[in-house]
Amino acid sequence: MAQQQLPDSPPLAPAGSGDPGPPAAGTGGPPTTTATGANALTGSAGATLARYLHDQATAFLRALSLRGEHETEADEQLRASARRIGGVLHIYAPLTDPAWAEPLRAELGWLAGTLAREPQYAGRLLRLLEALRRLSAAADPEAPDGASGGAGAGAGQGADAPSGEEAPATPAPSASSGNGAPLALGAARAGALLDRQLTLARTRAHSATLQAMGSSRFHALADSIAVLASEVPLTAAAESPAATVLPPLAAQADRRLAEAAGALPLLRAAHPYNAEAVQAALGTELTADLQDSPWHQVRVLLRLSRYAAEVCRGAGPDDEAAARRLSAAAELLARHREAAESAAAVAAAARTPRIAPATAYALGVLHADQRHEVEAARFAFSRLWQPDDRPEDPDDDQGDRGPRRSPVPGARKE
Amino acid sequence: MAQQQLPDSPPLAPAGSGDPGPPAAGTGGPPTTTATGANALTGSAGATLARYLHDQATAFLRALSLRGEHETEADEQLRASARRIGGVLHIYAPLTDPAWAEPLRAELGWLAGTLAREPQYAGRLLRLLEALRRLSAAADPEAPDGASGGAGAGAGQGADAPSGEEAPATPAPSASSGNGAPLALGAARAGALLDRQLTLARTRAHSATLQAMGSSRFHALADSIAVLASEVPLTAAAESPAATVLPPLAAQADRRLAEAAGALPLLRAAHPYNAEAVQAALGTELTADLQDSPWHQVRVLLRLSRYAAEVCRGAGPDDEAAARRLSAAAELLARHREAAESAAAVAAAARTPRIAPATAYALGVLHADQRHEVEAARFAFSRLWQPDDRPEDPDDDQGDRGPRRSPVPGARKE
Repeated sequence: MAQQQLPDSPPLAPAGSGDPGPPAAGTGGPPTTTATGANALTGSAGATLARYLHDQATAFLRALSLRGEHETEADEQLRASARRIGGVLHIYAPLTDPAWAEPLRAELGWLAGTLAREPQYAGRLLRLLEALRRLSAAADPEAPDGASGGAGAGAGQGADAPSGEEAPATPAPSASSGNGAPLALGAARAGALLDRQLTLARTRAHSATLQAMGSSRFHALADSIAVLASEVPLTAAAESPAATVLPPLAAQADRRLAEAAGALPLLRAAHPYNAEAVQAALGTELTADLQDSPWHQVRVLLRLSRYAAEVCRGAGPDDEAAARRLSAAAELLARHREAAESAAAVAAAARTPRIAPATAYALGVLHADQRHEVEAARFAFSRLWQPDDRPEDPDDDQGDRGPRRSPVPGARKE
Repeated sequence: MAQQQLPDSPPLAPAGSGDPGPPAAGTGGPPTTTATGANALTGSAGATLARYLHDQATAFLRALSLRGEHETEADEQLRASARRIGGVLHIYAPLTDPAWAEPLRAELGWLAGTLAREPQYAGRLLRLLEALRRLSAAADPEAPDGASGGAGAGAGQGADAPSGEEAPATPAPSASSGNGAPLALGAARAGALLDRQLTLARTRAHSATLQAMGSSRFHALADSIAVLASEVPLTAAAESPAATVLPPLAAQADRRLAEAAGALPLLRAAHPYNAEAVQAALGTELTADLQDSPWHQVRVLLRLSRYAAEVCRGAGPDDEAAARRLSAAAELLARHREAAESAAAVAAAARTPRIAPATAYALGVLHADQRHEVEAARFAFSRLWQPDDRPEDPDDDQGDRGPRRSPVPGARKE
């Protein structure tokens, strides 16, 4: 889909208008494949940047035109393009007019954030129900587990059964005073509670998205992107050759990423079962936030680094390998964030007034489980990021897993 | 302490009589060092076995005499000797009269089991309070963590504060509707609840021990052990040379261990964060039991293998290394069992009627944490047991951690 021509009048139809638009394929495809080709660094820096922005703007406008039919896929593409345009304008800021780029970036951030919310809540609910299902698995390893998304515990009561209110004052249910049955029932109730809360959040996010897409604010943004598809307000610096201007700016993004990632406690995280992420699971949320935010920050810098590389990437095998590594790392940090935010959602659900103790217990198990997922993602990331830095024998540290005993490494460069 | 002579009249004083007994040192020392010396396999099999049993019986009787002064250490030694005598009589059964050995083994099992209970409850409580402290750590990494055994959460209310009854009907406490403070209070309450329950269990176990030590059943057992210190009822097979009789019997114990360990899902366990042990945390207890018992079984076989080796061990470096490996493996499986039983204790506490939701939530977090400790112990054991069998890159499996997707390896020999 290299250098596809824009339709003469970009379909700026508001959401749901059903405008078919150009029958371009691949709005659901992987958004990373932008066709800048092998000769990205020939010509002027401005031309290369404009080509990338043009591609993204085209993808954005095409997704917009398809939104009536395939809302989810279209929104995903809108978000991906919005992030890429915003990110690239940030990284290659010296090449574009700041008076034009800065407000556009702010609007792109608003749109990407708005569009992100609904899929986040949907994914979080699926993730938590799946975890609950796993945590309340029956003893029989041959038990059918095909039913997706159900927190069906072994108590003969599916996740959907307590669809009404959370029974506030009833104690543990009768006929289940035996081994663990109340806990299994608690899992079903916890699933129902999370389902209610996250479905409500999702519905609200959907309404907010619809409202945003119909707003004049969005129409103005879409107009700006349409302009971007045809011409980019460049600065004088953009007239220099791409090969001399773009790589240093991309390298700067890489450097920021390497510094931030190097400051993470990677050595620590490379030890399996270090029990750090689950630490403070019962403390204030601030503890988890303080611990998680450097990792989230690296996730953002990783994204910027990937977008920067997309603009000036050749097709060499080195670039391919580097791109794959960044992509894998991004996936791990995305999982890190999903787990961290899911854990926070569980903690929030546990603060619902008058829930039954069995429900609270199940939420506690689920919270700790998600914090362990956070730890697992950190482990995988640290192994990926510093493969040479592995401890010789991870068994050695099983003895001293005290959270504060082993020194956290200082800021280390990659 | 090789071949120490028995006192003429073995001090069979009941517990608490304060009989000083022989001033032998080292009742609290590591019980593995029994002095069979480098020439263990010279002479007849019966002589070698009798020497080992004599040493253990002597240690037993000495510990008994010291019980008035150092009850804890003495009980530990009594238990260690009882286990060793019983285990060795089992492994080298063809060498002793079964009509004498079988009943003695049963009584030794009873005594070791009785003596084990109190330290188990004490250790479990310490373990769980320490875990609660870790899980409710404050955000400040420089916070003092010297207070041992306290579940002091950041809410300005220590673990000892709610020393009365668990407030049954009060909802989440006032003045803490903010971020996580109820959860921290829940941790303190969970700690107090576990403290009450496990201290009660410990006190009962202590009474049971006292009663057992004063019983005629125990006196009869002590008499049998006094006999053991002077002579062992051997069979005709015991007259054969030690070097031809003992090693095959010890090898049989090793083989049983290797087979049982080989049947464990070690490949699986060697993948960090496989989330298997925490699976079914919300299901029935049966699930965890089914999952854990093969590991517990290996722990018992490991112990037998170690005792067998103690009888016929030379002092060669190979034997040293093997002993160290078995000792390390035993430690890991002991940790595995402690974590599994601690998790079960937490689940039991969560079934206490009318606990507050915040308490139940904290117990849920704690339960999942202990199940992850189970998983961590399995991981360490599998790495120790099959060091060559490590997966090339543990990161590869981070993608498919579904509990039933990766095949559980069949029974593999070591």
